[in-house]
Amino acid sequence: MKNEWTGFVPGVWEREINVRDFIQKNYTPYDGDDAFLAGPTQDTKDLWDQVMDLTKKEHEAGGVLDMDTRVISTITSHGPGYLNKDKETIVGFQTDKPFKRALMPYGGIRMAKKACEDNGYTLDPEIEEFFTVHRKTHNAGVFDAYTPEMRACRSNHIITGLPDAYGRGRIIGDYRRVALYGVDRLIEDKQHQKDTTRVIMYSDVIREREELSEQIRALQELKKLGEIYGFDISKPATNVKEAIQWLYFGYLAAVKEQNGAAMSLGRTSTFLDIYAQRDLANGTFTEDQIQEFVDHFIMKLRLIKFARTPEYNDLFSGDPQWVTESIGGVGIDGRHMVTKMSYRYLHTLSNLGTAPEPNLTVLWSTRLPENFKRFCAKTSIESSSIQYENDDLMRVTHGDDYAIACCVSSMRIGKEMQFFGARANLAKCLLYAINGGVDEISKKQVGPAYRPVVGDYLDYDDVMAKYKEMMKWLAQVYVNTLNIIHYMHDKYCYEKLQMSLHDKKVTRWFATGIAGLSVVADSLSAIKYAKVKCIRDEDGIVVDYEVEGDFPKYGNDDDRVDLIAADLVDTFMSYVKGNHTYRGGIPTTSILTITSNVVYGRNTGSTPDGRKRGEPFAPGANPMHRRDTHGAVASLASVAKLPFSEAQDGISNTFSIIPGALGKDDQIFAGDLSVEMDEFESEN
Amino acid sequence: MKNEWTGFVPGVWEREINVRDFIQKNYTPYDGDDAFLAGPTQDTKDLWDQVMDLTKKEHEAGGVLDMDTRVISTITSHGPGYLNKDKETIVGFQTDKPFKRALMPYGGIRMAKKACEDNGYTLDPEIEEFFTVHRKTHNAGVFDAYTPEMRACRSNHIITGLPDAYGRGRIIGDYRRVALYGVDRLIEDKQHQKDTTRVIMYSDVIREREELSEQIRALQELKKLGEIYGFDISKPATNVKEAIQWLYFGYLAAVKEQNGAAMSLGRTSTFLDIYAQRDLANGTFTEDQIQEFVDHFIMKLRLIKFARTPEYNDLFSGDPQWVTESIGGVGIDGRHMVTKMSYRYLHTLSNLGTAPEPNLTVLWSTRLPENFKRFCAKTSIESSSIQYENDDLMRVTHGDDYAIACCVSSMRIGKEMQFFGARANLAKCLLYAINGGVDEISKKQVGPAYRPVVGDYLDYDDVMAKYKEMMKWLAQVYVNTLNIIHYMHDKYCYEKLQMSLHDKKVTRWFATGIAGLSVVADSLSAIKYAKVKCIRDEDGIVVDYEVEGDFPKYGNDDDRVDLIAADLVDTFMSYVKGNHTYRGGIPTTSILTITSNVVYGRNTGSTPDGRKRGEPFAPGANPMHRRDTHGAVASLASVAKLPFSEAQDGISNTFSIIPGALGKDDQIFAGDLSVEMDEFESEN
Repeated sequence: MKNEWTGFVPGVWEREINVRDFIQKNYTPYDGDDAFLAGPTQDTKDLWDQVMDLTKKEHEAGGVLDMDTRVISTITSHGPGYLNKDKETIVGFQTDKPFKRALMPYGGIRMAKKACEDNGYTLDPEIEEFFTVHRKTHNAGVFDAYTPEMRACRSNHIITGLPDAYGRGRIIGDYRRVALYGVDRLIEDKQHQKDTTRVIMYSDVIREREELSEQIRALQELKKLGEIYGFDISKPATNVKEAIQWLYFGYLAAVKEQNGAAMSLGRTSTFLDIYAQRDLANGTFTEDQIQEFVDHFIMKLRLIKFARTPEYNDLFSGDPQWVTESIGGVGIDGRHMVTKMSYRYLHTLSNLGTAPEPNLTVLWSTRLPENFKRFCAKTSIESSSIQYENDDLMRVTHGDDYAIACCVSSMRIGKEMQFFGARANLAKCLLYAINGGVDEISKKQVGPAYRPVVGDYLDYDDVMAKYKEMMKWLAQVYVNTLNIIHYMHDKYCYEKLQMSLHDKKVTRWFATGIAGLSVVADSLSAIKYAKVKCIRDEDGIVVDYEVEGDFPKYGNDDDRVDLIAADLVDTFMSYVKGNHTYRGGIPTTSILTITSNVVYGRNTGSTPDGRKRGEPFAPGANPMHRRDTHGAVASLASVAKLPFSEAQDGISNTFSIIPGALGKDDQIFAGDLSVEMDEFESEN
Repeated sequence: MKNEWTGFVPGVWEREINVRDFIQKNYTPYDGDDAFLAGPTQDTKDLWDQVMDLTKKEHEAGGVLDMDTRVISTITSHGPGYLNKDKETIVGFQTDKPFKRALMPYGGIRMAKKACEDNGYTLDPEIEEFFTVHRKTHNAGVFDAYTPEMRACRSNHIITGLPDAYGRGRIIGDYRRVALYGVDRLIEDKQHQKDTTRVIMYSDVIREREELSEQIRALQELKKLGEIYGFDISKPATNVKEAIQWLYFGYLAAVKEQNGAAMSLGRTSTFLDIYAQRDLANGTFTEDQIQEFVDHFIMKLRLIKFARTPEYNDLFSGDPQWVTESIGGVGIDGRHMVTKMSYRYLHTLSNLGTAPEPNLTVLWSTRLPENFKRFCAKTSIESSSIQYENDDLMRVTHGDDYAIACCVSSMRIGKEMQFFGARANLAKCLLYAINGGVDEISKKQVGPAYRPVVGDYLDYDDVMAKYKEMMKWLAQVYVNTLNIIHYMHDKYCYEKLQMSLHDKKVTRWFATGIAGLSVVADSLSAIKYAKVKCIRDEDGIVVDYEVEGDFPKYGNDDDRVDLIAADLVDTFMSYVKGNHTYRGGIPTTSILTITSNVVYGRNTGSTPDGRKRGEPFAPGANPMHRRDTHGAVASLASVAKLPFSEAQDGISNTFSIIPGALGKDDQIFAGDLSVEMDEFESEN
């Protein structure tokens, strides 16, 4: 056994890259309470004061304190950067100083340029020319291949938020590998993968060989990044401080290379706890020291920043990076995976104060230890900053070493990645079915010129038949659009560092998304159970509806409408699955929007449920506002009927509870049930 | 009919892009003699003096007079350049002045850098960094995908001259389209092609759509290139001067974009003659004027220059561009295609003096008019600068609108292109068969470790069985290597301008090549008909041979050995065809080397035919030097037995004749039978 591994329980993890095996063999579940936790050190307080001061200055400067306009970000593009070198126990910034945004044009030069200009900076004209003339970007590639139909779908907002002008994100490198194995071993492994590709040079084999070469190069650069900060990360980490530092270098390299819509961290706390346990046992470090390392690590993650446009930030009401860290959960052997490190991570919300990043996400299970549940509840109440997700549900598909990318996209770390796919507006699709493919707002023929609905009143069977055909069309153009996006992203903006921290054989989830679910369910219910009259404009386009009578509404645990919603998910997904997907991607979908539902509504005409043109959709899988009149449990029951098997990329339900409603004795249940999503309505 | 087309015979060429139809409907065969030809004008003489002066200065400067080290060549990268604007009737240089070499790094930055340094210039370090870090080149892509076996084959010279560090060339844009249709019509046509791709976004459809977008962009840049020189080439040319200028802008755009190993012109003379005939009839221009346009056009073609390394130029004993123009030939309707313009082109060798470029190639047929044959003979004698190729043979496969790319690669213009594939060393392959895959010079295991020959004497059946297996291996690694090269060339160095002057559906010839044919034929003959003893080194590797007795030698019209040579071509090609080829390429081969046979010989050990290590191979399909002892006809007869159907990319025979041997009365037959080839032994 390697020296660095002394004291660890052996396993196949020694012979192959297998972090899960290492964790399962070595972690120590912790059932105790939070009494062991240490407060912030003076250095931590000083550093955080410095951060708060810079944050204030950044705010005063209009959102951005400094920005590269000429140096293009790569893993090794910058010298070291520090807040205060003497006080930082974990080091590394994206550029050569904190709060300075890096220049990342591979996704699209226009977006990079706009990010500069909107923040008062000027992109170096040589860089702009180079990325316009000689170095094609993802964005340029995509628009070269788009069809007029795809552009029309995009500009008419029936397909929205496509990652065609920026990095797709939602790929999690297994950054733990850097700590456990050191970079040399990872390079050796990748070299072996390259030596054992298939031998007939079909184009996909050539692509694989080139990608593996890129990955090896990324790992070599990762070593150099360590050297820039004075560390030799070619070998495994020897203690928890190094483990955190090595792991963070892996993540830092990823965010220096990619400005993805969601750059998530993975599931690192229980892994790191193994090192902490060893160090505590050996007397290498004290609890105070370890908490300081964690505080400084989390501080670094809070300072991950990208150069983005105000439109992007407006949409999200902030500047989100989705540095999501998944904490806790239960192993498939039945042991919970809460460790002291799970506490330490959450404790940063107290030591440093509350913050939206990193997106600390508890993988919730009924089987989590009582003490931890209480600690989560307490921290949630104090910080309003913990996200909860259903581990009992996701563990079935993904086992016990998955993590959340972005807000709800679960994937096995280092074994799966996602082709992020934004959303299709199913509510607008219903209006296209009614109007024979004519957009109700632009009045353009966007969808196929199928026969529109005729007559004054909508007939359920007629509308459903037309809607299915229109959904089939939408699924086809949607999937083909995504095929282009992911082909071009691989070609012009390949995530070589992140993929170097994956296995050779990677499962690719081909993510799609649905917007407007409850609007459609209620609309179809209205057509079926009430009478819906069409209001046409002078050209015969149906632009409004009058509902006569009442109808069951989604969100009240009423199967008459809830099953319409569930069927809708099934039906649309069956159409999605009927299409060719790039690179063997496995189709999945999500039903989640948290802020962009407002934008979708703004761009969608009146719907047969009585919703007027421009009014917001409900977020995610939520019932429409105020229509869930039968109480919280009924509302949740409606959402729970949606088939997770068809929407494994996540179903979101934004649910607010007045604290008092939870009782006064014992606050077991708290926090924010809602989930977030990445969404950026860019029009090219 | 468009105004510009007034006077032309109508046809389908008006409704579709179809230059051949235009030519066939409109050209005027010329059976007369050369009496009509005009000498050079004073302006022509002045300009040529200027060229000669600059050539001298270039020579004095060590080979290069000026060079871009920072501005990267694109179609529109430079302002206009002139020799003497007032005197030039046809304008346009690759950069902003004559004799200044452009910087073209897409094929490989190291090659571009070396070309600078070897000529005393320094590549801008920012450009170098950019093309190393951010903008990958063809060369970098190829080496990312190569297997260790491919690298070994390359460095041990069993596969040689691969276009993996420079542009592949051998693609001929149909530059005539620019003149006949104007660029706007061509853009419209390409847009229609893009609008009618297949609709399911498989990766090859995405690639096609992106390429068509690139092509449209190239055509838009081509229009701008015209504007830079003050011409509006969006519309068709109205007279012969414009037709030459438009056509030349098309070609100029190609050589501004690509530094291909062979940038050939096509088959333009008979096309242009149609314009000249109309102008003469209308009194628009005189013969003197038209000859001046042609002289100035040819002068421009002579000044096409690329930044290359001394090694490249040494190998070719010069600085070749292969600006090959195919002249004459016979139509499939039986009419010969010689026009006055065919004479005018060849007449430049007299008006401007002799020159190797453009590579004026007569498509020779027994049915060419007697006067033209005599004129060719006369011009050949005076200039030694005409290449002849067998139109009667090539017309069967390619019809009457093909042209020669490089030296012998025939392809239908605008309908076919070639993936250039350099050569496999079949002589070395025979030595690998004998030594079980061990290279006889490096002593490394390069080929598969099959059983070597044992015993002192070679047995024909044993050697043949082993040789076939080794050829099968070689064909596999060779084709797979080429698959990588062409995948990467398309990815990083796509010929968007040249391909914009092709049809949508393009036939791709997957060219391979054979070196050492006569060495192998004679070696196998020696093994079969004489006794060949193996001389082994201390490690048991056969490093030399002793031939006991005599044996039939290729080049004497002796079927015993000639059929071995012919079978060899068949057999190797059958193995080549057994492999997957990139992008549906149709495998073909060539048997041609004109200078690099010396290098091949230098890198190949002694062979069983008695040739000693390091001695040159015979060029192309030639018999080995001095072994063809039965006269010229017998020697030619041996070569003629090689199956052209399997080697449609060309068979070369370098054949020198003492003028006296041809008789004294009537010099019908003269010129250079040899053909040239592009070949560059770069070791990366």
